[in-house]
Amino acid sequence: MRKFGSGRLRSLLIHSFQQKHILRPHHPSSLLSSSLPRFLSSSTPVLDFPPSSTSSMADPSASKLPVTLQNINPKILKCEYAVRGEIVTLAQRLQEELLANPGSHPFDEILYCNIGNPQSLGQHPITFFREVLALCDHPSILDKSETQGLFSADAIERAWQILDQIPGRATGAYSHSQGIKGLRDTIAAGIEARDGYPADPNDIFLTDGASPAVHMMMQLLISSEQDGILCPIPQYPLYSASIALHGGTLVPYFLDEASGWGLETSELKKQLEDARSKGINPRALVVINPGNPTGQVLAEDNQRQIVEFCKQEGLVLLADEVYQENVYVPDKEFHSFKKVSRSMGYGEKDISLISFQSVSKGYYGECGKRGGYMEVTGISPDVREQIYKVASVNLCSNISGQILASLVMSPPKVGDESYELYCAEKDGILSSLARRAKTLEDALNNLEGVTCNRAEGAMYLFPRINLPQKAIKAAEAANTAPDAFYCRRLLNATGIVVVPGSGFGQVPGTWHFRCTILPQEDKIPAIVTRLTDFHKSFMDEFRN
Amino acid sequence: MRKFGSGRLRSLLIHSFQQKHILRPHHPSSLLSSSLPRFLSSSTPVLDFPPSSTSSMADPSASKLPVTLQNINPKILKCEYAVRGEIVTLAQRLQEELLANPGSHPFDEILYCNIGNPQSLGQHPITFFREVLALCDHPSILDKSETQGLFSADAIERAWQILDQIPGRATGAYSHSQGIKGLRDTIAAGIEARDGYPADPNDIFLTDGASPAVHMMMQLLISSEQDGILCPIPQYPLYSASIALHGGTLVPYFLDEASGWGLETSELKKQLEDARSKGINPRALVVINPGNPTGQVLAEDNQRQIVEFCKQEGLVLLADEVYQENVYVPDKEFHSFKKVSRSMGYGEKDISLISFQSVSKGYYGECGKRGGYMEVTGISPDVREQIYKVASVNLCSNISGQILASLVMSPPKVGDESYELYCAEKDGILSSLARRAKTLEDALNNLEGVTCNRAEGAMYLFPRINLPQKAIKAAEAANTAPDAFYCRRLLNATGIVVVPGSGFGQVPGTWHFRCTILPQEDKIPAIVTRLTDFHKSFMDEFRN
Repeated sequence: MRKFGSGRLRSLLIHSFQQKHILRPHHPSSLLSSSLPRFLSSSTPVLDFPPSSTSSMADPSASKLPVTLQNINPKILKCEYAVRGEIVTLAQRLQEELLANPGSHPFDEILYCNIGNPQSLGQHPITFFREVLALCDHPSILDKSETQGLFSADAIERAWQILDQIPGRATGAYSHSQGIKGLRDTIAAGIEARDGYPADPNDIFLTDGASPAVHMMMQLLISSEQDGILCPIPQYPLYSASIALHGGTLVPYFLDEASGWGLETSELKKQLEDARSKGINPRALVVINPGNPTGQVLAEDNQRQIVEFCKQEGLVLLADEVYQENVYVPDKEFHSFKKVSRSMGYGEKDISLISFQSVSKGYYGECGKRGGYMEVTGISPDVREQIYKVASVNLCSNISGQILASLVMSPPKVGDESYELYCAEKDGILSSLARRAKTLEDALNNLEGVTCNRAEGAMYLFPRINLPQKAIKAAEAANTAPDAFYCRRLLNATGIVVVPGSGFGQVPGTWHFRCTILPQEDKIPAIVTRLTDFHKSFMDEFRN
Repeated sequence: MRKFGSGRLRSLLIHSFQQKHILRPHHPSSLLSSSLPRFLSSSTPVLDFPPSSTSSMADPSASKLPVTLQNINPKILKCEYAVRGEIVTLAQRLQEELLANPGSHPFDEILYCNIGNPQSLGQHPITFFREVLALCDHPSILDKSETQGLFSADAIERAWQILDQIPGRATGAYSHSQGIKGLRDTIAAGIEARDGYPADPNDIFLTDGASPAVHMMMQLLISSEQDGILCPIPQYPLYSASIALHGGTLVPYFLDEASGWGLETSELKKQLEDARSKGINPRALVVINPGNPTGQVLAEDNQRQIVEFCKQEGLVLLADEVYQENVYVPDKEFHSFKKVSRSMGYGEKDISLISFQSVSKGYYGECGKRGGYMEVTGISPDVREQIYKVASVNLCSNISGQILASLVMSPPKVGDESYELYCAEKDGILSSLARRAKTLEDALNNLEGVTCNRAEGAMYLFPRINLPQKAIKAAEAANTAPDAFYCRRLLNATGIVVVPGSGFGQVPGTWHFRCTILPQEDKIPAIVTRLTDFHKSFMDEFRN
């Protein structure tokens, strides 16, 4: 689809926007222009984000209150986050209806495939990690005899080690604003072991999941809408949301669906120059590897080109590496951008590189713990001091999340009591994810008019749906984007929740959805059947 | 000190800034103007915040890197957070020196009285809360027989109840972006029990401590520097930092030190009108009750006036009520602003009121858990949808913090196995805090030239130090604010860390410091002695 001339793409996009917005009733025109994130457009295919939901704007009961949609920060109106958007609100309503009225829908449960939230779909936590967390939460049981019977010996030992790293063993105290030093030491050692290059604990900033770290960097780099951030399209909408909230400009670069969501530096170069010609100053390049929502894993050679590009162009490389443990194909391997740049001979003074990691992903999937970190390299001490200051305003990230972030970087080792169980749990989850990815990919590719690249990594499939003209017209009549129309129909018919491609950005005129590979394996056959049946009847209904 | 004419105050302030900035060597003049938060000044006494630390700006090693102090977001440069500022950095250095070289300083430990972080100073967590957290972290031990011997029966029961409120019992899953519904039900019930007025769980937004909630409201209300936020002076620097980061204008109103840090609506009115006359649009009023750093507890009648003022003037009332459990004097009582406004007959459609609460304070002091919530009332559904959207971009707050926020609002009850221990722990902490507050207050008032209002609540004393002219001159020569000069001397001589008043704002020409009441009771006599000895020798050295 990248063969379209940009003029064609632009007119398609404008057409699509006009249809979506002009047809929308009760949508105050004053908000039309502000209901989109600022992005670079003209010669570039631009993003097709859904408009802000403003349905209740005219609520007369609120008329005397001082805060209205008209007088709040317009950057908030511009921000969108589809992963928890309209379709999820609908799903929550259906779930309540099912609870109140079993049998009221043609399915008996809602299957949340909209979000990378493994434990919500039945994945069990890794036992060793939870043992250590429980012991750190309630250390006074550590030396009781019953504890030996309930917890593994290495979990007890690890809890002692961690407590000794915390000043006063106070797990209820604010820590250093970058996180507890001993835990950062452990994480740095884990990074060193992974990469074979040194890591400095003073470069680590522990955060409540990766999202606050991303916001912190956007806040640092964006002063005005002249500041641009190069983002892949499709992208994880945290990036577009954060850029919108901080008032910057998203400079899109397009991943090539035809080559398995390939990332070409010629495309980066083209978009960078285009942005500069329009007075935008690109500050950073976001790369998500393994990809979200696309699931691709970058080849090392490609990563070298990206590092070189950032170095040449003076861009900060923002490397979203939260899926580093999630690789499912034998011909691909995860390499951190830190390792790649160090292997090229580039050090602290050559390249500015921020790597984001989270305890929410990987095989552990501990989303609710909100642990994560960024490794900040190639940033001068004075600028780092400013990052520290911003971190210190919120005091510190939660200590359980900090502990967990250290555990995932230093799991049980050969000889530890927990080692066998740990390996069985980890391998069980990762091999099951690989099977689920393959089954769902095959099922999607078997659907009429659907093509789906393989999920080499991460937790998602991002199939393209070639929608019949009649379906596109019906979506227009229903005042919604065609992919959102499809996803809504799918939810209403099957209880399966997926996110329309428009929430991630896509080449205009193409339609996709993102579906996680996370439902437990025993549910996959039913999902395939329900999806296949739905798709068939949808196509029958709308076939031209 | 409020008797100074504002012209006098302004010239004092300008004088103070000039001295501080112009004398500072290596301080690039381009940063001078941006090193202050934007605040309303002219006829108003303005704030005396410390300048940004920019000492390492000229680091030649960083010259090729793309991010510099000159091209980052200037709002970050403007932001200051003294609670973890320069003095704490010095304290950390001294601590390292003590560790490496015992006996290298005239004290053997650093006493962190700079921050409300009780467990870092030896306060023990409440047993029941930690039992429940540990069981929720590792639920698979819940039905094992050894668990009965290690945990109280009501903690086990409560853990089951909480797990049943979490979809799929998945404590490792992202929750609803406002927090787990069942926990919000518990919190709402706790608010109802506290206030005697209904609370709606849909009004509760659970957050990682109170700070992110404050940021969220600032982000909502501030579109440009024309948007003003009325803040008490002195204030907790989270507010000035957040306003600076979001690019708004802090409109100061001064608490009256002479009347025990009284809050007068005539002062509010004056500052509001002054701001409006300068084209500033005040959007909200921040009230911290019990006060930080001042420790005052507002009288109910005073609160009624504040509610009436906000209603009349169309201001959102941002009520920082994180110290609601920390009241130490028999003649004062905490009343929530929600209760006060409802008792006046004002409901959802009359007053916009956001109340912030945190698990970091109270008698529990669980700072490291990062739990908290805001109760959002008098906000129309469409605006609330925008708040929800911003919350959803970060997915959810950490689940342990959410659980703890529900526990502090529903502690053990009469008849529960843990009840007696819980009461003993809680009463022990609160009565000890009251004794510590009184002892330190008396000690401070015994110092030459020091006056200190009583700590009616919260965790702080904010004494005023009448510094001799010679000390002020010495501070000028040392290129620092006189209160920072005093605090630095105190730290170097005694190991006691307090925060200079300039970090909180104070009437220019007056000098204060904030000291927590949190060191354990057995350390208080030594602190009093060291502080008294230091102060005497300081005054002897600088007496005019």
